[in-house]
Amino acid sequence: MENLPISDPLILTAPLETSTSTATNNPTVPGPKIETNEYITIASTKRATLASLIPPEWRVPDPLPSADEIPNVTKYALKYLTSREADITEKYTAEDLVVQIAQGVYSAVEVLRAFGRRAVVAGQLTNCLSEVLLSQAFKRATELDNHLATTGTTVGPLHGLPVSVKDQFRVEGAQTSIGFVGLLGKKETKESESEAVRILKEAGAVVYVKTNVPSGMMAIETNNNIIGYTSNAYNRDLSSGGSSGVFLFPTQGEASLIASRGSLIGLGTDIGASIRLPAGVSGLYGLKPSVGRLPYQGLANTMDGQTVIPSVIGPISHSPSDLSFMMKILLNSKPWERDPNVIPLPWRSDVDEEVRASGKDRKRKFGVMQWDGMVMPHPPIQRVLQETVEKLRGEGFEVIDWNPPAHSEAFNILFKVFTADSGQEIHGLFSLASEPPVPEVALSYSNSASAALSALGPPMTITAYWELQKQTLSYRERYAEYWNSTGGVDAVIMPVAPSVSVRKGEGKYFGYTGVANVLDAASVVIPAGVSDKGKDGRKERDMDGVSDMDKTIWESYDPEVFDGMPVGLQIMGRRLEEEKVLAIAKELEPLLR
Amino acid sequence: MENLPISDPLILTAPLETSTSTATNNPTVPGPKIETNEYITIASTKRATLASLIPPEWRVPDPLPSADEIPNVTKYALKYLTSREADITEKYTAEDLVVQIAQGVYSAVEVLRAFGRRAVVAGQLTNCLSEVLLSQAFKRATELDNHLATTGTTVGPLHGLPVSVKDQFRVEGAQTSIGFVGLLGKKETKESESEAVRILKEAGAVVYVKTNVPSGMMAIETNNNIIGYTSNAYNRDLSSGGSSGVFLFPTQGEASLIASRGSLIGLGTDIGASIRLPAGVSGLYGLKPSVGRLPYQGLANTMDGQTVIPSVIGPISHSPSDLSFMMKILLNSKPWERDPNVIPLPWRSDVDEEVRASGKDRKRKFGVMQWDGMVMPHPPIQRVLQETVEKLRGEGFEVIDWNPPAHSEAFNILFKVFTADSGQEIHGLFSLASEPPVPEVALSYSNSASAALSALGPPMTITAYWELQKQTLSYRERYAEYWNSTGGVDAVIMPVAPSVSVRKGEGKYFGYTGVANVLDAASVVIPAGVSDKGKDGRKERDMDGVSDMDKTIWESYDPEVFDGMPVGLQIMGRRLEEEKVLAIAKELEPLLR
Repeated sequence: MENLPISDPLILTAPLETSTSTATNNPTVPGPKIETNEYITIASTKRATLASLIPPEWRVPDPLPSADEIPNVTKYALKYLTSREADITEKYTAEDLVVQIAQGVYSAVEVLRAFGRRAVVAGQLTNCLSEVLLSQAFKRATELDNHLATTGTTVGPLHGLPVSVKDQFRVEGAQTSIGFVGLLGKKETKESESEAVRILKEAGAVVYVKTNVPSGMMAIETNNNIIGYTSNAYNRDLSSGGSSGVFLFPTQGEASLIASRGSLIGLGTDIGASIRLPAGVSGLYGLKPSVGRLPYQGLANTMDGQTVIPSVIGPISHSPSDLSFMMKILLNSKPWERDPNVIPLPWRSDVDEEVRASGKDRKRKFGVMQWDGMVMPHPPIQRVLQETVEKLRGEGFEVIDWNPPAHSEAFNILFKVFTADSGQEIHGLFSLASEPPVPEVALSYSNSASAALSALGPPMTITAYWELQKQTLSYRERYAEYWNSTGGVDAVIMPVAPSVSVRKGEGKYFGYTGVANVLDAASVVIPAGVSDKGKDGRKERDMDGVSDMDKTIWESYDPEVFDGMPVGLQIMGRRLEEEKVLAIAKELEPLLR
Repeated sequence: MENLPISDPLILTAPLETSTSTATNNPTVPGPKIETNEYITIASTKRATLASLIPPEWRVPDPLPSADEIPNVTKYALKYLTSREADITEKYTAEDLVVQIAQGVYSAVEVLRAFGRRAVVAGQLTNCLSEVLLSQAFKRATELDNHLATTGTTVGPLHGLPVSVKDQFRVEGAQTSIGFVGLLGKKETKESESEAVRILKEAGAVVYVKTNVPSGMMAIETNNNIIGYTSNAYNRDLSSGGSSGVFLFPTQGEASLIASRGSLIGLGTDIGASIRLPAGVSGLYGLKPSVGRLPYQGLANTMDGQTVIPSVIGPISHSPSDLSFMMKILLNSKPWERDPNVIPLPWRSDVDEEVRASGKDRKRKFGVMQWDGMVMPHPPIQRVLQETVEKLRGEGFEVIDWNPPAHSEAFNILFKVFTADSGQEIHGLFSLASEPPVPEVALSYSNSASAALSALGPPMTITAYWELQKQTLSYRERYAEYWNSTGGVDAVIMPVAPSVSVRKGEGKYFGYTGVANVLDAASVVIPAGVSDKGKDGRKERDMDGVSDMDKTIWESYDPEVFDGMPVGLQIMGRRLEEEKVLAIAKELEPLLR
């Protein structure tokens, strides 16, 4: 495996949808001629290169199973795995697996072989990968095995664990396009690696793949002109709901990969939803920490100087204890000494114990938000939330209704912040290679810079921007006041989104997750149930005075289409309460599973 | 004392310098006619009201001693005090004094009488006060005495301690003009009080005065059209250095008040220098914490939505242990539950002990910056710094030369941030009452909005502002990298300013303190010596390639004029290392005294 043979182009599926329609659909935009456009050639070459980095024997034979035929591919790769490899990928948490490696039960190389295989299968079936680094990963795994064999010690607490990262993380030997053709080309070096990657590697992790993002990260669905559309591993199908249009199951590469067990744990980023929504609709756990808890240093990003509501990094995994495990490792390295944005706040294990103790005493108190006053959650989410409330009450916990300052204000703030420069930077990045914006990003930023300027208005003035910052703080203050006025709760439980699916072209609402970004609250997503057409029929609802967005989303619910999709819930704490929300998630896991 | 008699107008000295010269000196600015201008009437009425709040028997008899006659007024009030009152104001730290009050040695009322008396004398001699709240303070002190008498317990750890606050803090019953006539008028209520004031009062503090600020806080010298120019209690003299012009001794109301022992401890704010420079040239200790350590909630401010380099609050006092004492009390109240900008980081007393222990082991390591490459410190500062290095080495501590990324970059960032809106907000605040900007503020913002636009250019675009934010982070990263490359130091010791005095119209350089704001570093100022004309003669220096600013400031040094002024030094740690820099200050206090 060390010398990966290179041959055979283009195994990754082509983009489900090319974005060229955007340019040609709008006659006012002098869209580049797609036939001759270089960006298509560059992107296609990139896909071919990625494909060539997959060992031929690991390729899913042509023709790939269609989404219609096999919508759920989370277990698809099992047929290629030995039972030992299956065990490696299915039986352990990340924390347990590193113990197995440290004890010599599995070698780092065989662990990488198992996850690498599942990862490339997932990459082919869902387009979740943006970079394939198997060659250097196997080299590193071999080194790690040799180190253990010769010294009897591990190099660190992640010795031999394959860890995946979102495309924004810079990794030596990989490119960092964040979904823009114009950013392809340059390979990262050891010096340009992101701080978090440096910590992972120092701890012994094997970084073997990077995962796909929407161009510039600014969309709910993941699409770009390089890798194409990333589909949800639980349901790759673009379900046609008849007159109600085509449905999508939003995700991002990292969640699709982990849902497929092509990785046990990985790092994503979140500025409004991007860790939690994909985790929620993929049956995974995902933590959005507060700003400054984890090192963002050296990540590629858009609107990086925008610090009213900045993007943060956080882990996604199959278990809440793995999220704590990863947090602990990242913080034990004292990242604040290198990344001045990180708050010098070590992992507080005592909080974990306090929460466990107060849980035993049944002193827990939760606020539960049934809906955010903007978009009513669909029947399966309502049911799962109601069942959760009953389970909590059954355990003797106090549950109160949560009626904070209107979340609509938070959502409006978020949208204004994201479009403060009228999309100038996003459009500038597309224009580097004369790309037309993909429709999923154009949804918020229009399909050209000039269209953005007319739709979004001119860039904000400094004075308006400062006012927006003040409004954000004011919202946080009013929210804290409300929180205190309830006598305090340990956490707020609420939906991740109003729906597990969105109708094509309508995937724009991220208010349920976005509020935690506006508040800079720690928030973890926990799987809490599954959509069930038997239980979750359409429901009547008084639609008087209901907003268009709410009405459209409510009416889009289709029990058949949504059946079987995971339903996650959010557990939101206060700012920098990562330990607490994770301790609560760990406590609730057996209850909600 | 409870019912203060009201009579006799205008005891506070009139502004040393009216700002009207600015308007009339510049013929291109259609300055308001001062004779008819309402702002002068409003300001004069305000001064009369403040004067009326001072008991007649506490007034310094007319004529007030001139600055020429008695430049140093730090002890002036002693002649009005009983020996018991003198003891109260001279013998204790704040922490010790609250013990005396709790033990019934002194009553809260007599403590307030002692400090109140000194405060109003200082107010009359240096213009350090912006609000006088004696009536409500005596009422509160009486309540506190009654509480202690009837219950035998204190209401909190500051029971009966008079605490002063800068004018930005909103206090029930007081106005909050921050130096703008147009903001006078409205009295604050219990609901509008600043969070820090609420904590102080809850802890039993008696808030009895507020202190003067430059209009909008954006100047090194303190002047405004309401209270006028605040002079340094150590040297009120505007010394004429012959051909070298008139010298000023920059300060702010809070430092002038505390230097006069009209208060033992107070809260100021710092966005570039405003706690540390006044403390440094007043022989005081002052802490600038990192952003988010203390609650800024509810303070009046300018450019409040500017969060690239925000203003922070911090304590000023006569002893480093009082700074820790105040930090502990503010943090013990868990301000993060109410002010979402505060980081949930309790006071870490263990750091204090670690530092003491490593100090005993002589494991301390300091970086010393002799000059910042921009403006060479004057001979007394050079000498005091050199003596300090020798003392540290004498104690067995390691001292290394500090050569970080150019501080000039930090200063440039700071200046760009402060002028990002071209002074629109500052000028808007002046224009509320058609005030001409005071010259000290006009120094950075021009003397009219239109002049600012031509001098500073148009307001920054969002894109340029985001770039500035990125540059700030990049500077912090490079500074951290340098810090780590030295093997790490416990703190950096450097001047507070290049000079203890500035020549009139040249008080614009705050690079030595400003760098800590750009880095968001915790930094404490510690008194380390006194200018001495006998030791600190003029020095020759190679002036080749020296900047105009450096040359001008260097040549302005005058041993006679500067003689006897306190020289402070900065002890700068890393971000959020408040405990550490204070522990070091406490350790070095006996060495440097």
